[in-house]
Amino acid sequence: MTGTKMRPIRKTIPVEDALRLAGGAARPLDRTERVELDACGGRVLAAPVAAGQDVPPFDRAAMDGYAVVAEDTFGAGRTAPRLLDCIETVHTGDVPTRTLQPGQCAQIATGAPMPEGADAVVMVEETDRRGTEVAVFTPVYPRQHVGRRGADIAQGAELLQRGDLLTPSRLGSIAALGIAAVEVYARPRVALLSTGGEIAPPGRPLGPGQIYDINRFTLGAVIREHGGVPTPLPTAPDNLDELGRTVDGCLDHDILVFSGGSSVGERDLTLDVIRQKGELLFHGIAVKPGKPTACGVVGDTLVLGMPGYPTSCLSNAYMLLVPVLRKVARLPPYLFRTASVPAARRFVSTPGRHQFYTVRVVDGRAVPAFKASGDITSMSQADGYIEIPARTDIVEEGETVEVKLF
Amino acid sequence: MTGTKMRPIRKTIPVEDALRLAGGAARPLDRTERVELDACGGRVLAAPVAAGQDVPPFDRAAMDGYAVVAEDTFGAGRTAPRLLDCIETVHTGDVPTRTLQPGQCAQIATGAPMPEGADAVVMVEETDRRGTEVAVFTPVYPRQHVGRRGADIAQGAELLQRGDLLTPSRLGSIAALGIAAVEVYARPRVALLSTGGEIAPPGRPLGPGQIYDINRFTLGAVIREHGGVPTPLPTAPDNLDELGRTVDGCLDHDILVFSGGSSVGERDLTLDVIRQKGELLFHGIAVKPGKPTACGVVGDTLVLGMPGYPTSCLSNAYMLLVPVLRKVARLPPYLFRTASVPAARRFVSTPGRHQFYTVRVVDGRAVPAFKASGDITSMSQADGYIEIPARTDIVEEGETVEVKLF
Repeated sequence: MTGTKMRPIRKTIPVEDALRLAGGAARPLDRTERVELDACGGRVLAAPVAAGQDVPPFDRAAMDGYAVVAEDTFGAGRTAPRLLDCIETVHTGDVPTRTLQPGQCAQIATGAPMPEGADAVVMVEETDRRGTEVAVFTPVYPRQHVGRRGADIAQGAELLQRGDLLTPSRLGSIAALGIAAVEVYARPRVALLSTGGEIAPPGRPLGPGQIYDINRFTLGAVIREHGGVPTPLPTAPDNLDELGRTVDGCLDHDILVFSGGSSVGERDLTLDVIRQKGELLFHGIAVKPGKPTACGVVGDTLVLGMPGYPTSCLSNAYMLLVPVLRKVARLPPYLFRTASVPAARRFVSTPGRHQFYTVRVVDGRAVPAFKASGDITSMSQADGYIEIPARTDIVEEGETVEVKLF
Repeated sequence: MTGTKMRPIRKTIPVEDALRLAGGAARPLDRTERVELDACGGRVLAAPVAAGQDVPPFDRAAMDGYAVVAEDTFGAGRTAPRLLDCIETVHTGDVPTRTLQPGQCAQIATGAPMPEGADAVVMVEETDRRGTEVAVFTPVYPRQHVGRRGADIAQGAELLQRGDLLTPSRLGSIAALGIAAVEVYARPRVALLSTGGEIAPPGRPLGPGQIYDINRFTLGAVIREHGGVPTPLPTAPDNLDELGRTVDGCLDHDILVFSGGSSVGERDLTLDVIRQKGELLFHGIAVKPGKPTACGVVGDTLVLGMPGYPTSCLSNAYMLLVPVLRKVARLPPYLFRTASVPAARRFVSTPGRHQFYTVRVVDGRAVPAFKASGDITSMSQADGYIEIPARTDIVEEGETVEVKLF
């Protein structure tokens, strides 16, 4: 604002356009890193995983019981057991030492390798041990209760693709192949640059006219939840040259988020530096709160100019930053946990603006939690939010709303 | 199994009873730790947070524009502007130096402290600057566009309670008070003890009869996702004395999860050591997969004996370990992301057993992903699972099922 004319926002674009423009400018990361399997939960595979071996690596018992020649059990019954000679016991981790002949069996544990000659397992529940003999009370067919070599994963199969999210079960399937570390996409690096001369870090007393930095913490937590690595930077300088140098120093980051200041002057400075060093994609979204939001690209870095009000900044983070960040991180679109509940009262929205409305769920109904613009407690005491599209002005009491839960 | 008679499971308890018993034995942690706010996302507050100061700490402008004496603007209009004398400019972080008199105004940025004497802000869009004079085109009422001191958080208010989950907006509200670190509950420590002589760690070649450890990785990832800290331990010894000593060494953990072996013998050893050192709560759940699951308490440590099959172990982890772990961690019950879709074909379930059925969602319909018991790919290639209660035998094609997404 220093000496310059204030330039208010006179034109805004619909939220859908903002998402399309910002999403179009967000480039999925190509940077990769090798990570131990133990630490790969939630990461994204950067190379396919092919099976170098069969899983399981040998035919194995699928039940505790006796490995048998299936044909020996045909016709067995509760009153007409077949008696087999038990020649050895195979524990898991053992290797059978003898080949089964007709009339013989081997006691076997779930997971232990099948002896040569055996082709089925009789469950222990269907047997009775009598010294070295075993009475079998039920017939089994060939391969019954046997886990065949390669049945789970066949050698050479492409188990997982590049871009697959590493869920617990997928980590398990990689472990099954004996692979202890994999190549995953790096986490997006997100620089957080607070603007605004009034912003002070928590942990020390405030000077006159100062308030504590909130956005660094709300944005940092959102960024971590969605696969990014936030780097909070010192408060941005308030002249164009110095701000330009600060931005230059951030260009090794994938995303740069301005936040903290909310005055027109500070915003203009942010816009000027984006225009000077790169391209401004839009400024002003028809959304409430969060109208004074800008997006641009400087070098390979996506730049978001978030409004300074903590609630506006955080609601914008949920609506705009999260989809952009997840695209850069190559994470699938985020599915909010939701609750579909009736509105506890009429919600009135600003015509022509997409509205982000914080609510609490009380007795199974959505109650407004909104206090005043900028009040962090209107979000911290909410259970989630509803969105009212630009074309809708009113949600009537009792109408079902979908609450996106925080 | 070594030398002992195999003891198959003859009795099982319903899954609801298992959850009740295990949940009843799970004690919420009392251990706390002090953590920097930057790293507190997803943690649980161990002490209330009270406001030591007002937020905002002063009356401030809620819009960019001009601080005025509201009365001066009464009757203003587009064709009848009120002309005010602009006596200073207040940036954010500034402190106003002059007291406003009637007929005067001060240019002010959003977030900047209101000058003495001013009681409202006119938005810049409703003004026109003419040298040192400002034309005001609209009336404002007292307090309009002013964020009042303490309006967001009043000094002395109890902002957050013990037990509150630290969401991004709650972290923001703590930051707003200038608090840089808080006391949170410690993360539950979970020891993972693989049993089974066949289990080998990934990263080196398999010996004869061996398979790679899968459960350590699937359980580890689930435990991390739900607020726990997994500690994988070396493979458990296969005699009671040594196993007892290993268990004694784990009693500084909050939860001990046996996993990996699945033979009756290994399971019996686990049961014997729980009985010898503590109390066995149950053994055998009427659930498929995952029947041979045990639960007990040794000292202050909750002990879960999970089946060795990777799919059984992991489905049990979702059904039993997650609720227990979250209770110990003081996290709210987990809300799965779900998709309600029609069944693509008839699902047949085992009567009397609660069934966990892995599915893929293909063209908006739930398709079974189950291969064979123990096949990790039947989970790693699934999108989620459906549960079929013990009293239901059949889900017909087209019937709506709720898929819990991985």
